[in-house]
Amino acid sequence: MNGPVSPFAPRNLPDMPEIPGIRLAAIEAGIKYQGRRDLLLAVFEPGTVAAGVLTQSKTRSAAVDWCSEQLKHGRARALVVNSGNANAFTGKRGVDAVRLTAEAAAKAVGCEPEEVFIASTGVIGEPLETGKFAHLLEILAKDATAAAWRAAAEAIMTTDTYPKLAADGAPSLPIAGIAKGSGMIAPDMATMLAFHFTDANIDHALLQQAVLGHAQDTYNRITVDSDTSTSDTVIVFATGKATERGMAPITSAEQPEFANFSKALGTNMLELAQQIVKDGEGLTKFVKVSVSGAESVQAARRIAFAIANSPLVKTAIAGEDPNWGRVIMAIGKSGEAVERDSIEIRFGEHLVARQGERAPNYDEAAAAAYMKAAEIHIYVDVGVGTGKDHVWTCDLTHRYISINADYRS
Amino acid sequence: MNGPVSPFAPRNLPDMPEIPGIRLAAIEAGIKYQGRRDLLLAVFEPGTVAAGVLTQSKTRSAAVDWCSEQLKHGRARALVVNSGNANAFTGKRGVDAVRLTAEAAAKAVGCEPEEVFIASTGVIGEPLETGKFAHLLEILAKDATAAAWRAAAEAIMTTDTYPKLAADGAPSLPIAGIAKGSGMIAPDMATMLAFHFTDANIDHALLQQAVLGHAQDTYNRITVDSDTSTSDTVIVFATGKATERGMAPITSAEQPEFANFSKALGTNMLELAQQIVKDGEGLTKFVKVSVSGAESVQAARRIAFAIANSPLVKTAIAGEDPNWGRVIMAIGKSGEAVERDSIEIRFGEHLVARQGERAPNYDEAAAAAYMKAAEIHIYVDVGVGTGKDHVWTCDLTHRYISINADYRS
Repeated sequence: MNGPVSPFAPRNLPDMPEIPGIRLAAIEAGIKYQGRRDLLLAVFEPGTVAAGVLTQSKTRSAAVDWCSEQLKHGRARALVVNSGNANAFTGKRGVDAVRLTAEAAAKAVGCEPEEVFIASTGVIGEPLETGKFAHLLEILAKDATAAAWRAAAEAIMTTDTYPKLAADGAPSLPIAGIAKGSGMIAPDMATMLAFHFTDANIDHALLQQAVLGHAQDTYNRITVDSDTSTSDTVIVFATGKATERGMAPITSAEQPEFANFSKALGTNMLELAQQIVKDGEGLTKFVKVSVSGAESVQAARRIAFAIANSPLVKTAIAGEDPNWGRVIMAIGKSGEAVERDSIEIRFGEHLVARQGERAPNYDEAAAAAYMKAAEIHIYVDVGVGTGKDHVWTCDLTHRYISINADYRS
Repeated sequence: MNGPVSPFAPRNLPDMPEIPGIRLAAIEAGIKYQGRRDLLLAVFEPGTVAAGVLTQSKTRSAAVDWCSEQLKHGRARALVVNSGNANAFTGKRGVDAVRLTAEAAAKAVGCEPEEVFIASTGVIGEPLETGKFAHLLEILAKDATAAAWRAAAEAIMTTDTYPKLAADGAPSLPIAGIAKGSGMIAPDMATMLAFHFTDANIDHALLQQAVLGHAQDTYNRITVDSDTSTSDTVIVFATGKATERGMAPITSAEQPEFANFSKALGTNMLELAQQIVKDGEGLTKFVKVSVSGAESVQAARRIAFAIANSPLVKTAIAGEDPNWGRVIMAIGKSGEAVERDSIEIRFGEHLVARQGERAPNYDEAAAAAYMKAAEIHIYVDVGVGTGKDHVWTCDLTHRYISINADYRS
């Protein structure tokens, strides 16, 4: 896209740490886009383990099928990501393309094809021609450096307006993450592409446990347009090199090192999840929807998503209109138990409704002024139980239509 | 709205029959809109029975609560509908407004308040001031005629760009219907406001059975924007006057008269359901989505709605782009069982995908030409079972955003 950059694009990219055991390189392969990088190779030293979560889509891509298989053993020596073509719904040719990519990367890196993780993002249904890029993997393997984070994050962008990077963890155990995502964003065990890198020496099962748990609270709590991708992939790579500088291996969930690592990983995932929403196609507002008083946490989350995915709520926010009647509508359509005559709604600090009707002191002008902010918080209590949860979303604007009604964006 | 009229607005309104036992009148009460009718009264002679279906929203309006109660006995002498204010989420004041309206109409017509059916449509959360219109009901009761269909249909419009009327049934047993609806349209046992009128002499339980059955195939198969109203109401009124001209009373589902009547009622409901979609906010295309090969009819319908409600599918249609990859995505997110590598997709007569990948002879130019039509048919087979179903929807355009991002439309 050659449109405006998201108003939430960070002014400065974070200082990204070098992670022992990880090198990256990216290049312009011309798969679909011209004049920008579209192929990423990350190379991991022997001993690296990988854990992750993948889309629950029933039409998931060949690359997702492949990663699902390799996550079982979790040994990783390389990651290949291309943008411009999702290699989804491409039948046997898609399976072959994944296999050829794995073989080419394995040859370039010196490993087994099954130690190569693969993700593709872009147009669905077009065959992916590996001939365009397989020969470049050898060059990338030679050029890869520990510092190429920005190039890596840029190479996986599609309609993104800024590269998404995050650095967390103590200096003794750094975590670096990159992600892409802008449209077709609705969580279903994971969302779009996100990769996290660390040199922790951690047991594969423990790493899987950490990433699964945090996915629920991060990538599974965001939505741009309620549409779930065929290619959603979140993978954490841990090289184990930290032990070389004296960090204890993490082999038990009881170790304080696990708690510290897991917390930092959760932060890294949350930062990138929010960055994805903040680059939602055409957005002008970043919105948090909090629901309390529901029958359960799950019910609260479903109500929050009913609000966050409602086209009428999202267009009202785009219009800076505190049209809370549409929030009432969305609560009602969620199907979850609510006590209509106890419902309370706040926009930021502004109490707009309580006890099933408009608040007596509701000040429309003040609420309208609040809606002009870039970040909006909608808070709802449905008066039934103690379940609460929150999700993040963005508004629905003319620009979303322009981006997606263009012929084959 | 003072925007363009839907391209699907009928050129001529249908010839509406006079229904013995039914008189109608409408007036400008100034409830919210200026310069247009916003209050409808229909008067029924004694003996009229009413059956209907109401929104399943958990935040349904006071008028829906009222109708739900009165549908149990089903005796009807009047129908009052106002536009401009939904009287939803208005707490005890909303309940009082309904009661006052019923009492005023009962006095004007000469019946019990419980024989008055009420519907309100418009902004949610604003108190409805009955003082603006209760005194007008007496005038309307005096002015009501058997011919005032167009005025009646116009009085219940909100963002509709044309009045919705349909006439069906044999001359010996006519059925007339009016409806409104344009946005906030997603079925949940019923959708928006639709009223059907007949002079059949029919048992209340049979009438309820007929309207429930047909609602599944008509109002429950349409979606504009996936948002479900607090006020959805479909009611059929049958005056029983047909017996005065020798028509047999309908007291059993085995009678051929019931089959004939039910068929005509189903046609009347389908016509109005399609008219509602064809006036979808901002639409340029009318779209049918058919799904076959699913595990069950319900599964087929859920897959069809996943496609019909997908913002990315709807914007692609607006852009006249045969972007079938987005159809694949929507199938995948439905959560229903599908055989990915057997999926087949057609746009009209154009086979775009089969056996899990793009069709060998797929002709993008021909498919793109097809997408320029005003009416689009998307056909999907998911290759699992024999379940099939279809739904109707429209595209998602800039104008939908303009209509709904305006401050308090």
